[in-house]
Amino acid sequence: MDSVVSSVTTKAKGVTVTNTSTLGFRVWDVADYVIPAQEENSLFIMTNMITTVNQTQGLCPELPDKTTVCKSDANCAAGSSGTHSNGIATGRCVLFNETVKTCEVAAWCPVEDDTHVPEPAFLKAAENFTLLVKNNIWYPKFNFSKRNILPNVTTTYLKSCIYDAITDPFCPIFRLGKIVENAGHSFQDMAIEGGIMGIQINWDCNLDRTASLCLPRYSFRRLDTRDVDHNVSPGYNFRFAKYYSDPTGAEHRTLIKAYGIRFDIIVFGKAGKFDIIPTMINIGSGLALLGVATVLCDVIVLYCMKKRYYYREKKYKYVEDYEQGLGSEMDQ
Amino acid sequence: MDSVVSSVTTKAKGVTVTNTSTLGFRVWDVADYVIPAQEENSLFIMTNMITTVNQTQGLCPELPDKTTVCKSDANCAAGSSGTHSNGIATGRCVLFNETVKTCEVAAWCPVEDDTHVPEPAFLKAAENFTLLVKNNIWYPKFNFSKRNILPNVTTTYLKSCIYDAITDPFCPIFRLGKIVENAGHSFQDMAIEGGIMGIQINWDCNLDRTASLCLPRYSFRRLDTRDVDHNVSPGYNFRFAKYYSDPTGAEHRTLIKAYGIRFDIIVFGKAGKFDIIPTMINIGSGLALLGVATVLCDVIVLYCMKKRYYYREKKYKYVEDYEQGLGSEMDQ
Amino acid sequence: MDSVVSSVTTKAKGVTVTNTSTLGFRVWDVADYVIPAQEENSLFIMTNMITTVNQTQGLCPELPDKTTVCKSDANCAAGSSGTHSNGIATGRCVLFNETVKTCEVAAWCPVEDDTHVPEPAFLKAAENFTLLVKNNIWYPKFNFSKRNILPNVTTTYLKSCIYDAITDPFCPIFRLGKIVENAGHSFQDMAIEGGIMGIQINWDCNLDRTASLCLPRYSFRRLDTRDVDHNVSPGYNFRFAKYYSDPTGAEHRTLIKAYGIRFDIIVFGKAGKFDIIPTMINIGSGLALLGVATVLCDVIVLYCMKKRYYYREKKYKYVEDYEQGLGSEMDQ
Repeated sequence: MDSVVSSVTTKAKGVTVTNTSTLGFRVWDVADYVIPAQEENSLFIMTNMITTVNQTQGLCPELPDKTTVCKSDANCAAGSSGTHSNGIATGRCVLFNETVKTCEVAAWCPVEDDTHVPEPAFLKAAENFTLLVKNNIWYPKFNFSKRNILPNVTTTYLKSCIYDAITDPFCPIFRLGKIVENAGHSFQDMAIEGGIMGIQINWDCNLDRTASLCLPRYSFRRLDTRDVDHNVSPGYNFRFAKYYSDPTGAEHRTLIKAYGIRFDIIVFGKAGKFDIIPTMINIGSGLALLGVATVLCDVIVLYCMKKRYYYREKKYKYVEDYEQGLGSEMDQ
Repeated sequence: MDSVVSSVTTKAKGVTVTNTSTLGFRVWDVADYVIPAQEENSLFIMTNMITTVNQTQGLCPELPDKTTVCKSDANCAAGSSGTHSNGIATGRCVLFNETVKTCEVAAWCPVEDDTHVPEPAFLKAAENFTLLVKNNIWYPKFNFSKRNILPNVTTTYLKSCIYDAITDPFCPIFRLGKIVENAGHSFQDMAIEGGIMGIQINWDCNLDRTASLCLPRYSFRRLDTRDVDHNVSPGYNFRFAKYYSDPTGAEHRTLIKAYGIRFDIIVFGKAGKFDIIPTMINIGSGLALLGVATVLCDVIVLYCMKKRYYYREKKYKYVEDYEQGLGSEMDQ
Repeated sequence: MDSVVSSVTTKAKGVTVTNTSTLGFRVWDVADYVIPAQEENSLFIMTNMITTVNQTQGLCPELPDKTTVCKSDANCAAGSSGTHSNGIATGRCVLFNETVKTCEVAAWCPVEDDTHVPEPAFLKAAENFTLLVKNNIWYPKFNFSKRNILPNVTTTYLKSCIYDAITDPFCPIFRLGKIVENAGHSFQDMAIEGGIMGIQINWDCNLDRTASLCLPRYSFRRLDTRDVDHNVSPGYNFRFAKYYSDPTGAEHRTLIKAYGIRFDIIVFGKAGKFDIIPTMINIGSGLALLGVATVLCDVIVLYCMKKRYYYREKKYKYVEDYEQGLGSEMDQ
């Protein structure tokens, strides 16, 4: 038996447009929504986002919540910073809007307001994006290697095919919506708060048979189980920023809280070839177990049956005491 | 037996210059060609690239191909977007150049033209870059840990050495060109369209012997088998963009289609120590197999040999029927 | 037995401020110090940095060291580039400062001066940042899945808890300082030159028992063993750059040599359920081993004891030569 060594590369395709008041008409392509541009066994597709444009280093009121709303400076401890703070408190209590006052913080201003996640998802068209997964596997012990693009597949087929468990089980191009659907979830629901999808490639092979029977089997699984009770940072999101330089040399940035689906490609499998040693160990153990039958028969015959004394007499040869035997011999 | 737990860090070194009409004279250092800056068990070195400078959101003609070349607006479906599109079609048919008309798209304009991959590779000097691989391993069961920088290696040696299978088998600094060459490929060929190289570190150790005999063994393998029949996105490449802000606040970007070599560091190994239990299981099974000899001898003696009746008589003690026995006893 | 399949997501929280002459007063939040923004099983927190602002492509003197200090142009070979060079030598010898002359290079200018690592660490406040680790595991053979946020944990608890081996062993939120401390190191020391911390989650489960007894066990380990003898790139650091565009269209960048701690989340574990086959193999082997007792007794009784001839006589039934037997029968 040997475990698989694998290498995975992925490539997403797809373009979509959005039209919002803050960002205007905007086209999104691969370089915009895949973050970071490349990973080893994984690919993140941004499906939703909260953008905070033109942040600069400065002082501004914190987002109102239980701990930041204040009446006067006395409510704000200078230098303090909670787990969910956007900055370090200056100790002043300032107007957040016309009605609410919050503690002022030194932060990237204005601070991000992530209380409302866009619904439906901002890049909901990601459902129709496609993902090409190229996977090479290698069983080092048997020096057997194979790729998930099978040799009998034509280039024309690969240009147009989309994976389907029944009609196209060996097409390595997946529609994102179908991946999520196959795992039993709704893409549009998942797109809002993000999540992790596992694309599992199983390469169980019996290498005693011909190599062409060693085929990849794809399966899909949502890896982040949503738990209704615990919505502590549900789904999957992270923050990143694009940094710009003003003509004056000052730095400003666009902060993006990116929600999206991370596709983890999990390759597993075991290849086996007939080997005499484990087989002999199993046969040996099996034979030894047959020995239990003899012991059981003996126990039944010698201890349980009515005629046990008779059998016992026949079974055992009683060796007379040697000394006595010698004595009787001497007697003769 | 125990499987290895490992941590890997990598560091590339090397500088090169290019001089092209679009980019001018330009120096490339680590921060320019390693993308992303850090990964867990992997390092990507850009060796070739297609740069599309000064892209802005707008409308422009699509790259001509079978589906995008048009005669009139009737050929272009507004809102449509194919798998290989750079944007969303507006429904208009516009001049791409003086002779060809293509469908107009809303996209990052001008669209990328990646029909010709630069040959030879743009950063062909990457062949002489070096890669330092630091690897710490740990066998949890035996609480045994070791690093690939061996204790008897001096700092001076590490500053100047380059790995060579024969002369410097324990130097953890690799010349990129040599890695590819050791795997039996040509660096300059691989640099054009990119690929995946596996740097395998094997830590098979017999922990019954002294720890200094537990040594890393390096081997190199190209993980993406090129297949002449299927050139659906051959090699390895991905797109990323550097975003800039105009003085007016408008965003523009430089799109880079990066071709290059991803070095995956694959650490494997098994450490073993003598353990009495599996040894006993094997001995037990072996002994049981010896029992087959007895059975075989019996079969031959009792069923196959000419004198079988004689042996059978001697072998078996025939127990007379108990009832009969009792009867005869009563008769007496 | 089955091995674990796992998915990990991480989220860091924390803000700090720095005040230096080169960068001024500056707030650092998650988007600034987590690089890259997301990784699969890993998270890098920048704790220290050497920033080289406003680099442009050009010609400038190299950093003085053994190989770059020069007296005249004769000491500088045009076009040469050593392993630690910042650029390609132009062949000229120019003033680095008022007293030292070094070879001129074509490089991103001014070149980075990383001879002095800031001490104490620039973002030493990272000690108080927190890290939420969400981990879902799955045992494919038994179709058993579980997450490290246990079902009996309340949302309020999760909002305020910090992992502690004794008081809060199931809280998935870790204080960075405590992680390093639990591994037996000092955070402030590690923060200066960086390093790798392993957060190990052990999911050994006996699935014959109730699922609620299958619990994660956290442990911490420094994965890069510091070796006092070999300080060839000690700790963990890498370089990345933020690229800006001048109003004139020229590109400049800020080069950052980032030192920091990479937290690798290592999930391991084996789940077992009672299975009859290996049990039978072990019992079989065990029984076979009991057979050794019979053989040993026989050896002792038949070869070692004084009365061995007596026992041997009783043990073996001597089969007279068949021919002879037949002969004697005929004789009769």
